[in-house]
Amino acid sequence: MPKGDEISQALAANEAFYRAFAARDLTAMARIWAEGADSICVHPGWTPLFGRDAVMESWAGILSNPAAPRIRCIRARATVQGAFARVVCYEVVERNILVATNLFVREQGTWRLCHHQAGPASGEAAALGEAESEGAVRSKRLH
Amino acid sequence: MPKGDEISQALAANEAFYRAFAARDLTAMARIWAEGADSICVHPGWTPLFGRDAVMESWAGILSNPAAPRIRCIRARATVQGAFARVVCYEVVERNILVATNLFVREQGTWRLCHHQAGPASGEAAALGEAESEGAVRSKRLH
Repeated sequence: MPKGDEISQALAANEAFYRAFAARDLTAMARIWAEGADSICVHPGWTPLFGRDAVMESWAGILSNPAAPRIRCIRARATVQGAFARVVCYEVVERNILVATNLFVREQGTWRLCHHQAGPASGEAAALGEAESEGAVRSKRLH
Repeated sequence: MPKGDEISQALAANEAFYRAFAARDLTAMARIWAEGADSICVHPGWTPLFGRDAVMESWAGILSNPAAPRIRCIRARATVQGAFARVVCYEVVERNILVATNLFVREQGTWRLCHHQAGPASGEAAALGEAESEGAVRSKRLH
């Protein structure tokens, strides 16, 4: 498959992840996460979760929470490296801007998510996001 | 190669990364990062860096900074998935506890780093780290 198509498909898989997140659609979220690869999820401010069961349990909690904040993804950028694809993007979560790494593996011809880490984005990113959001938080460089 | 050996080698590569970081050894850091894979680095509080040149430039700045904080890695856990390995670990950076994802690819039989993201760890992780550090910060769940 041409590399451009691989990248487009990785970006589409990433969009599907945030669509499921925003729509609080646990069924879609379960389809998006890989079955065969070890799933790891590092939600911001959580301890890392290892294994599909723990990861899906976390999503069941997040997506069923009526107080869960709205989320959308901006400025996604995909990199394909053979058997895996990485998407780095910003997440606009109400007044916070986060930066996320999403790692996808091929399963039956489809990119499926096996790793997610999100954490506070930089002040610069937050400033960029301000144009697209209602506001933003600042964070500091830790090293 | 047996999976246990692959995991041990991934953990050793991860330790080498933090050893180079702690020793401010830019030459070692340059060997640790992949040549063939796209390098991506999400330092805490920075905008993401794409490409080996940008990533190595950031390390040149960090490692040459006499005010750079001390760092060490604890509780590393590796997962090998064919052509890539993920290590999730905590970073003790003076009084902060971060959580990191480090993604390695095989190059000439060696695991080399192609992706690093670190961000503030949870309160629980910080509490865990307190036993091993002088102190810790708390962070809040963002979703």
